[in-house]
Amino acid sequence: MNPLRIDGEPATAVASPQTRPAIAVLGGTGALGSALAGQWARAGYPVIVASRSREKAVAAAAALRAQLPDASVDADELGPAASHADIVVLAVPYAAQRATLEAVRHALPGKILIDTTVPLRPPKVGTVQLPAAGCAAVEAREIVGSDVRVCSAFHNVAAAKLGAGRAGECDVLVFGDDPAAREVVIALSKAMGVNAWHGGPLANSAAAEALTSVLIQINRQYRVKGAGLRIVLGE
Amino acid sequence: MNPLRIDGEPATAVASPQTRPAIAVLGGTGALGSALAGQWARAGYPVIVASRSREKAVAAAAALRAQLPDASVDADELGPAASHADIVVLAVPYAAQRATLEAVRHALPGKILIDTTVPLRPPKVGTVQLPAAGCAAVEAREIVGSDVRVCSAFHNVAAAKLGAGRAGECDVLVFGDDPAAREVVIALSKAMGVNAWHGGPLANSAAAEALTSVLIQINRQYRVKGAGLRIVLGE
Repeated sequence: MNPLRIDGEPATAVASPQTRPAIAVLGGTGALGSALAGQWARAGYPVIVASRSREKAVAAAAALRAQLPDASVDADELGPAASHADIVVLAVPYAAQRATLEAVRHALPGKILIDTTVPLRPPKVGTVQLPAAGCAAVEAREIVGSDVRVCSAFHNVAAAKLGAGRAGECDVLVFGDDPAAREVVIALSKAMGVNAWHGGPLANSAAAEALTSVLIQINRQYRVKGAGLRIVLGE
Repeated sequence: MNPLRIDGEPATAVASPQTRPAIAVLGGTGALGSALAGQWARAGYPVIVASRSREKAVAAAAALRAQLPDASVDADELGPAASHADIVVLAVPYAAQRATLEAVRHALPGKILIDTTVPLRPPKVGTVQLPAAGCAAVEAREIVGSDVRVCSAFHNVAAAKLGAGRAGECDVLVFGDDPAAREVVIALSKAMGVNAWHGGPLANSAAAEALTSVLIQINRQYRVKGAGLRIVLGE
């Protein structure tokens, strides 16, 4: 743990593991959470797999360590994991977003929280149904308060592709009102081999959250899996 | 005008001009509207440049005809243009969306309306501020009624690139509750050399409308013009 690296320079591939921030992945036993935890562990970040169920977290961490014997992978319940981490990632279904954040918010002030929540409402997950606050990321900030450096990202990357290290063709959009925090998240994405872009303020997370339903439609319509987006620049 | 082509098969590059649907572009004197009108005229579609101001419409149509002497380009005021067209495209600023649709809705039942409106609210055009109805496209349908085949598209293509025929690297997302109408819009985009995708129901237009503010942020942050998106498929 090294707060200087978090607040100052983003971690890079040349940083030694000791200087890299520890990342707690809340919901690290799920599809996206375990993919993120695995890719960051592979890239040399100390990772804490966190779940409401300590047993599930321990099992998921053991599975990761079996694949990556040299990686630093711990397991814990939600609150202790958030307390011990430098950066906290929320990777739970929308229905669990509020309860999970309420369980950890005491540990978040001053830290970067990366919310990956997409407000899908089953059964119509292919239809955009954004919440009244505008988007799930803004709801997260309302729950944890303004002394947490809330960003959002990783809405549009298929978990299976990410976990298999095959998400490099997709781009990640990063949102947040703190540009330095966004820069840290962009570095964390690039450390996994996935390009990422500054997408603007946290309110703009609505675009990426809504786009997930569009990608679900494209997967259905064109009979593919893991459609994603790439940003193309003008000249 | 050939209603069969509209309701049935989308126009293709091999159709003769006589069998292609006539397209009225409301706001055809603006940046996006004139780019769309020009590209469709170039592709052989009969185009009606429409504006509140007949004089402006006539001048814009004359400019297009000067570039494209063989094209079918007419000019008219909003109501008559919508009446004479098979397909109506709305390309006005968000602030003018409601008044423009109210001026033409008598002419729309049974026709395809392609709404390109992005609900940008100056001065914060780089911040997503979706309307209470969810998105501008759903607002359009509320205004014109359910007997109009409302689609939305062309939210994320820079007008300057499109007008110059340089938008081929970007993709267009097409939304609408009528898949056959979406298919016509996709064909109209491909006729301009711009790939397009079924993005799902009209409510999903929120994703593309919101993404415009994200692309504005990317243009600013990375000092480029005309950032766009491309969909990448999984395997």
